[in-house]
Amino acid sequence: MIVRTVDYIKGKVVILDQILLPTEEKYVEIGYPEELAAAIRILRVRGAPAIGVAAAHGVLLALENEILAGRKDAPDHIFDHGSDAAGFDIEGLDGAAIAAKLLETADMFAATRPTAVNLFWALERMRKAIERSGSDIALLAENVSAEAFAIHDGELETDHRIGENGAVLLRDGMTVLTHCNAGGLATAGYGTALAVIKTAHEQGKRISVYACETRPLLQGARLTAWELTRAGIDVTVLCDNAAASLFAAGRIDAVMTGADRIVTNGDLANKIGTLGLAVLCGKYGVPMYIAAPWSTFDLSIEDGSSIPIEERDPGEVKSFAGVKTAPDEARAYNPAFDVTPAGFLTAIITETCVIESPDAKKISAAAGKAGILPA
Amino acid sequence: MIVRTVDYIKGKVVILDQILLPTEEKYVEIGYPEELAAAIRILRVRGAPAIGVAAAHGVLLALENEILAGRKDAPDHIFDHGSDAAGFDIEGLDGAAIAAKLLETADMFAATRPTAVNLFWALERMRKAIERSGSDIALLAENVSAEAFAIHDGELETDHRIGENGAVLLRDGMTVLTHCNAGGLATAGYGTALAVIKTAHEQGKRISVYACETRPLLQGARLTAWELTRAGIDVTVLCDNAAASLFAAGRIDAVMTGADRIVTNGDLANKIGTLGLAVLCGKYGVPMYIAAPWSTFDLSIEDGSSIPIEERDPGEVKSFAGVKTAPDEARAYNPAFDVTPAGFLTAIITETCVIESPDAKKISAAAGKAGILPA
Repeated sequence: MIVRTVDYIKGKVVILDQILLPTEEKYVEIGYPEELAAAIRILRVRGAPAIGVAAAHGVLLALENEILAGRKDAPDHIFDHGSDAAGFDIEGLDGAAIAAKLLETADMFAATRPTAVNLFWALERMRKAIERSGSDIALLAENVSAEAFAIHDGELETDHRIGENGAVLLRDGMTVLTHCNAGGLATAGYGTALAVIKTAHEQGKRISVYACETRPLLQGARLTAWELTRAGIDVTVLCDNAAASLFAAGRIDAVMTGADRIVTNGDLANKIGTLGLAVLCGKYGVPMYIAAPWSTFDLSIEDGSSIPIEERDPGEVKSFAGVKTAPDEARAYNPAFDVTPAGFLTAIITETCVIESPDAKKISAAAGKAGILPA
Repeated sequence: MIVRTVDYIKGKVVILDQILLPTEEKYVEIGYPEELAAAIRILRVRGAPAIGVAAAHGVLLALENEILAGRKDAPDHIFDHGSDAAGFDIEGLDGAAIAAKLLETADMFAATRPTAVNLFWALERMRKAIERSGSDIALLAENVSAEAFAIHDGELETDHRIGENGAVLLRDGMTVLTHCNAGGLATAGYGTALAVIKTAHEQGKRISVYACETRPLLQGARLTAWELTRAGIDVTVLCDNAAASLFAAGRIDAVMTGADRIVTNGDLANKIGTLGLAVLCGKYGVPMYIAAPWSTFDLSIEDGSSIPIEERDPGEVKSFAGVKTAPDEARAYNPAFDVTPAGFLTAIITETCVIESPDAKKISAAAGKAGILPA
């Protein structure tokens, strides 16, 4: 099952509003890059690969708006995912100024969220597409749109390959615990951790899933449970703090999550709570799997201690749905991510291979084979 | 700081409504044992020692109502904590029937919640007070009221002794993580785990507290943060899943929680999430302390596998404040407690002693010294 998380349709970026799920399935048309950046900041679209794809589309949206701005007899739109670009009159368009504007737009998206590296990976690809076009507006249009759609299509293909590589690790009858949402809602449409579960399910294996609700914003309860019930996969939601009791009772066969940034030695940042699950895996002898594309790797950083961790508004912890849940006088600690050391992992599943007991040497070898160059 | 969690005032049980905290501090007069039983079930009054005290007062409330039922010229009330009982006309009162009614009331309270053993301990003391009164109504009134108030006063005294015994373990400048509410709101007024923290604070030690919010009902965010800010103690609320990151960063010096039932070998049931914290303590070399009175011990059970664990309504996990947080099709797992093995504990702090590295032998020796008989 492919989720229409984010796409570029007839000159607009269309996102599934993840704040409203699971109550309402609403697709929102976004016409301005600034609006899309805000949507990323407030998590209307979220998930490491998805925000990379969204930001790429956002740069294209800036180009669309620059081309159409104040033009007479202009077409309704220029770019559309899956169709050829509409022809447009290049007269009066300043290619160099537009390229500069697109680079500024990329900088704006880079400032939305600090931890997931896929965002910077996608923006770097967009920057290179802009820069290799010079001031030639036709070339800019061709390169920028081709790159945005290539990022999108490539990430969706990647999801399926991760699913196939990881499904080998899941046997019929297994119970898998997952955290946050590493599903199609977090990517171009199929998922990372959930791609593995969906692929195993599509292969006919009976897989049961426990979804940690993932406080404070409940991506597990709201999004993973929504996505898995729609895919026909058995899912049970639990409070994050109830996971330990399932491990102690021997009811978890594997933990499978995504990642927001994996660094050179295999340490990784993922949604707050991942570290606690990895510690439980170690204590109770349960395999801890991470499913993530190469776009999640940051080989410019040595180890997890250098990953910037986003701290979000204390209000996310101290209130819910407008109801105060803690006294005003109390402070709140609200990191969005934690860092899990490579030594706690059983394997990292990528689109090219499964890296067992990951460390710097194995990751470097796998990256080399996959054609990924260190930064 | 003593919290007026539950008391028996002029013929009524008065509770601080914990559902409304921290938004509203409302004291509720309860006139019928059935109402009080409902209040315990829905957690208007909660915490292992507090529900023991509340149930004892509930049995006294049944006696109050039986004595006053349909009497002409009766006093406004018979019993009042801290005052002598009002005189009453025993004519027409059937002592044997009333005693039977009180035993039934005790059974009703015993069926409210299954895990905390303090409830059964308090009700057993009330049953013995009833039974040793025979059918003598004057003796019944004397014994039942004396026992209810003795349970209340004894538990409050116990809180202070736990505080003193435990405070020795906390040094100036320490940061303590706690879970759920093991404060005055969970006892006769001063607390167990929080009594230790409050006592250390009153001794002039600077103690900082991290309070896990404790999903699904947020007793940590709502109650512990309320109680500690009122006591002038520095408190920071966090989502349960963020605890691991604090351990990894070396920011936690000790974990201190209460317990709902401690059995012969030292295994214990406490609020769901306690086990995960104990695992983190083991992994990161942080001491794991449990503060609980002897009324929390159940020496009739060998180990933790026999403790009955309450499973509560899945709706507590799938919605919040009337807002749906998970799709209807998803199931939910909602145990109220988990079991932490004795081997994970650094020490249990009781009102008579600190039992380090608790096991069956040490607990038996400490119980013997404290004059506690095995069941």
